[in-house]
Amino acid sequence: MEVMRVLHMNKGNGENSYAKNSTAQRNIISLGRRVMDEALKKLMISNAEISSIGIADLGCSTGPNSLFSISNIIDTIQNLCSDLDRPVPEFRVSLNDLPSNDFNHLFAFLAEFYNRLNSKKEGLGLGCGGGESCFVSVVPGTFHGRLFPRRSLHFVHSSSSLHWLSQAPCGEAEKEDGVNSAQLYNVGKIYISKTSPKSAHKAYALQFQTDFSAFLESRSKELVPGGRMFLSLLGRSTQDPTTDESCYQWELLAQALISMAKEGIIEEEKINAFNIPYYAASSEELTMVIEKEGSFSIDRLEISRIDWEGKSINEESYDLVVRSKPESLASGRRFSNTIRAVAEPMLEPMFGENVMDELFERYAKIVGEYLYVSSPRFVIIILSLVRTG
Amino acid sequence: MEVMRVLHMNKGNGENSYAKNSTAQRNIISLGRRVMDEALKKLMISNAEISSIGIADLGCSTGPNSLFSISNIIDTIQNLCSDLDRPVPEFRVSLNDLPSNDFNHLFAFLAEFYNRLNSKKEGLGLGCGGGESCFVSVVPGTFHGRLFPRRSLHFVHSSSSLHWLSQAPCGEAEKEDGVNSAQLYNVGKIYISKTSPKSAHKAYALQFQTDFSAFLESRSKELVPGGRMFLSLLGRSTQDPTTDESCYQWELLAQALISMAKEGIIEEEKINAFNIPYYAASSEELTMVIEKEGSFSIDRLEISRIDWEGKSINEESYDLVVRSKPESLASGRRFSNTIRAVAEPMLEPMFGENVMDELFERYAKIVGEYLYVSSPRFVIIILSLVRTG
Repeated sequence: MEVMRVLHMNKGNGENSYAKNSTAQRNIISLGRRVMDEALKKLMISNAEISSIGIADLGCSTGPNSLFSISNIIDTIQNLCSDLDRPVPEFRVSLNDLPSNDFNHLFAFLAEFYNRLNSKKEGLGLGCGGGESCFVSVVPGTFHGRLFPRRSLHFVHSSSSLHWLSQAPCGEAEKEDGVNSAQLYNVGKIYISKTSPKSAHKAYALQFQTDFSAFLESRSKELVPGGRMFLSLLGRSTQDPTTDESCYQWELLAQALISMAKEGIIEEEKINAFNIPYYAASSEELTMVIEKEGSFSIDRLEISRIDWEGKSINEESYDLVVRSKPESLASGRRFSNTIRAVAEPMLEPMFGENVMDELFERYAKIVGEYLYVSSPRFVIIILSLVRTG
Repeated sequence: MEVMRVLHMNKGNGENSYAKNSTAQRNIISLGRRVMDEALKKLMISNAEISSIGIADLGCSTGPNSLFSISNIIDTIQNLCSDLDRPVPEFRVSLNDLPSNDFNHLFAFLAEFYNRLNSKKEGLGLGCGGGESCFVSVVPGTFHGRLFPRRSLHFVHSSSSLHWLSQAPCGEAEKEDGVNSAQLYNVGKIYISKTSPKSAHKAYALQFQTDFSAFLESRSKELVPGGRMFLSLLGRSTQDPTTDESCYQWELLAQALISMAKEGIIEEEKINAFNIPYYAASSEELTMVIEKEGSFSIDRLEISRIDWEGKSINEESYDLVVRSKPESLASGRRFSNTIRAVAEPMLEPMFGENVMDELFERYAKIVGEYLYVSSPRFVIIILSLVRTG
């Protein structure tokens, strides 16, 4: 799988687009707001003389979410400057995603973004575009490598992106031969599962460690000393990587695929060979990679739980969630749309464009049934890091 | 006309796309290479300590041309550093165009661009993307306003872009009332013509002066002192703005439109109200604006002539160009395709998508007939400027 080409959210503004099906990701951004604001406050207080601030959003995707995080960051800094009675710095904003992301659609939201900035702060001297106070650029490329000039950034934000891998993991035997592109054979599954071979668990964990370490190393060169990162990603709260919370969205998608294979609509062999380039890490794994890489210290690490629509869960009242059958099926449909907007570009080259409607129809139903008998949750790991040295 | 929305080259990679019909613009880039290389040499010699160089291409458009100028600039600097026995600086490259430009299609060429960089100079340490030596970003917005942070650039390049205006010029009477959006009424024409009222000449010249001055003022803030600009744009070699060399492409397009109005296919009223946001300036006008704005000195100003396919013309042999009828018609077709790729997004909202094929069919024929009896030329003005102070 060429991840660079196929890992992008569904383009445009249509029914199946990411722009129209990304409420969950927006909720996740809001969930992290408190920790992010705290990180920004610490950054601004320890950099009293800052006149131009470099900010990057990594994995910005497309649609209304793309500029949501950046708007939040600018709002917070403007409010901080007002509280601290300091001039607002020049904002150098970089939006990053893979080159296959629908940047054209993102740019359609820029005028609204600038208008909001302008109307909010007339005194900023913002004319057309961001005037003299806010400069937005886009940097296409993988965040598993270098994206920005040395020491050009003060703050890096990334939400709902770092659980994506740079490539589908490879089989172990092949790894030993130094061949990286060999397929991992995972019968009837598309992600780690209770029935997956141990080599699959290992291959996934190793790929994540390699990728996350490369991410940290690149950012360590791009951030100024004392610069900060706010990261939120899907993860897990257990050691076991096969618990429902970390893999059931793919387990159920595999069920939908298998049901189609049984009817001869798709080939089962393709399911065995397809592995989603995604990994739900534990906080221990994240901590281990951060400590081993060595450029960042952890200021905060929090674990939050959300339901399958991205809404924050109050742990105490959690077991009480009861849905009627129609509610469950409607929720299944919305979740199916969310996953389709994200995963369709990866699934299409393997299974064919013509089966996508059928696949997500079945998936919606399977998820709906599951939500009727179970109250699954996702785990969001929130990290606030400081560039040391 | 909302220039921000409609001034973009035809998108994608289809038959009528700019990507497939931009050979003329590529020839114009090559035509300026000598003067550009000279400017880069002067820049590098006067900045001996430069370790990170900020370069911007303004009006980069989409397709293979978008990275052609940047590749040339990087090649030249690498060669200069080799000659001067100096380390190659870090390249911070910004590509700019209006937000409606097809950036998605541009990004499809990025991998090839990086591969070429990587293969050329293994020693540069370029890994994935531009590695640690070349960072490409995209800045969507109008170059008639601020685009980049203060003093962040060393070299600005713009080819075949500055002849575009920020808006279609307005009638004079309305200007006096301070109303900018009033339409300029120009019977049977879409640009300055021998039959246009003098107010049209004035309105076009004034709009260009306002826009070019705003361009210079914005760049003066973004360039470091001693920074340089290389600009090439369509212009004219005469005082009279109604000579063939500066307006005949639009004169003939107006003929095609009028022929369709006569047959009731489009409304003549719409032709009268449509004015192309384009201006072919003279070197005197350019000099006047540069001197009045005051931030730049002219290092070089050259006038070159090209034929209607963008090929450089040897003045002495020029009168000898003789084409057969089929050759003329084929050339007319190619020219029609070039103009369609550029102007269709502006014409479509006024005259309708459904008449575009017919319009450019007629235009191809009219241009073909014209090229059979005449050997018209375009004038390219090449400017090399230095940021003073």
